[in-house]
Amino acid sequence: MALDSLENAFYDELRDVLSAERQLIKALPKMAKKANSPELRKAFEVHLKETEKQEQRVEQAFADTGKAARAKTCEAMKGLLDEAEELLKEDAEPSVKDALMIAAAQKVEHYEIATYGTLCTWADLLGYDNAKRLLKENNAEEEATDQKLSKLAQSINAEALSPASA
Amino acid sequence: MALDSLENAFYDELRDVLSAERQLIKALPKMAKKANSPELRKAFEVHLKETEKQEQRVEQAFADTGKAARAKTCEAMKGLLDEAEELLKEDAEPSVKDALMIAAAQKVEHYEIATYGTLCTWADLLGYDNAKRLLKENNAEEEATDQKLSKLAQSINAEALSPASA
Repeated sequence: MALDSLENAFYDELRDVLSAERQLIKALPKMAKKANSPELRKAFEVHLKETEKQEQRVEQAFADTGKAARAKTCEAMKGLLDEAEELLKEDAEPSVKDALMIAAAQKVEHYEIATYGTLCTWADLLGYDNAKRLLKENNAEEEATDQKLSKLAQSINAEALSPASA
Repeated sequence: MALDSLENAFYDELRDVLSAERQLIKALPKMAKKANSPELRKAFEVHLKETEKQEQRVEQAFADTGKAARAKTCEAMKGLLDEAEELLKEDAEPSVKDALMIAAAQKVEHYEIATYGTLCTWADLLGYDNAKRLLKENNAEEEATDQKLSKLAQSINAEALSPASA
């Protein structure tokens, strides 16, 4: 597809974020399983449910483009999750690993916030009202998740600073 | 290095962001060269100068850790820049390519904002006052660049919506 219009750029970016959400749906259960803190595990589990709904919203957002909901591998999310999965394999103090997992998850959230920010702007310009509403909803959830992780990091960082097991 | 302390996690994350900044220093001149809008080209050139200073600040931030300033390949930035470079090769309407380049650059900025956010929090907890000051400066610049790109996107998106060449 030639990138000869903002419509096509929007479609391309939507395909990218569909891939990103699908990759995250595969990664979150592994992250939840490896989380040491019950609160962090719960946060990942809750975000998995949200991400499944976000994937559906992205699929629905394609309707405005009149084209099929087909993902296109998002290399950036692949890199982000490769780093996160590398971390899961590391030999680390549990609370330190939790602190690093939060850091990795916040990078993922910021990636999505940037992407949905662009998509919402473009949907608005293109008059894709349905897509705009759905993508705004996803963006708000990503921002809320980022803030929730920052809050959770306070207790986990404190624990990582002076691990009980040390 | 075992991730058995927040000190080591900080060092690991600092090595990651050093790699990220160095990768960006290599990518920005290519992005500037391919930008159609003179304002966008200028923005990438200005950000290249900033990024070179940010790299130096990261190198200086290592002093508080007492360890060498050695980069560790940041896979996430690699994925982000792979996508951006893929885009540069695409056959696209100039203003649409500019709009997509801004989108790619904002993903990079958000990646860095998330990383510096974590690093500033950890530097504070660890009492790394010098590192904290340097990393806060980098974070503020990334946020300012993100906002500058959002502003620039307004005119470029409008142009992409109704290209003069169409």
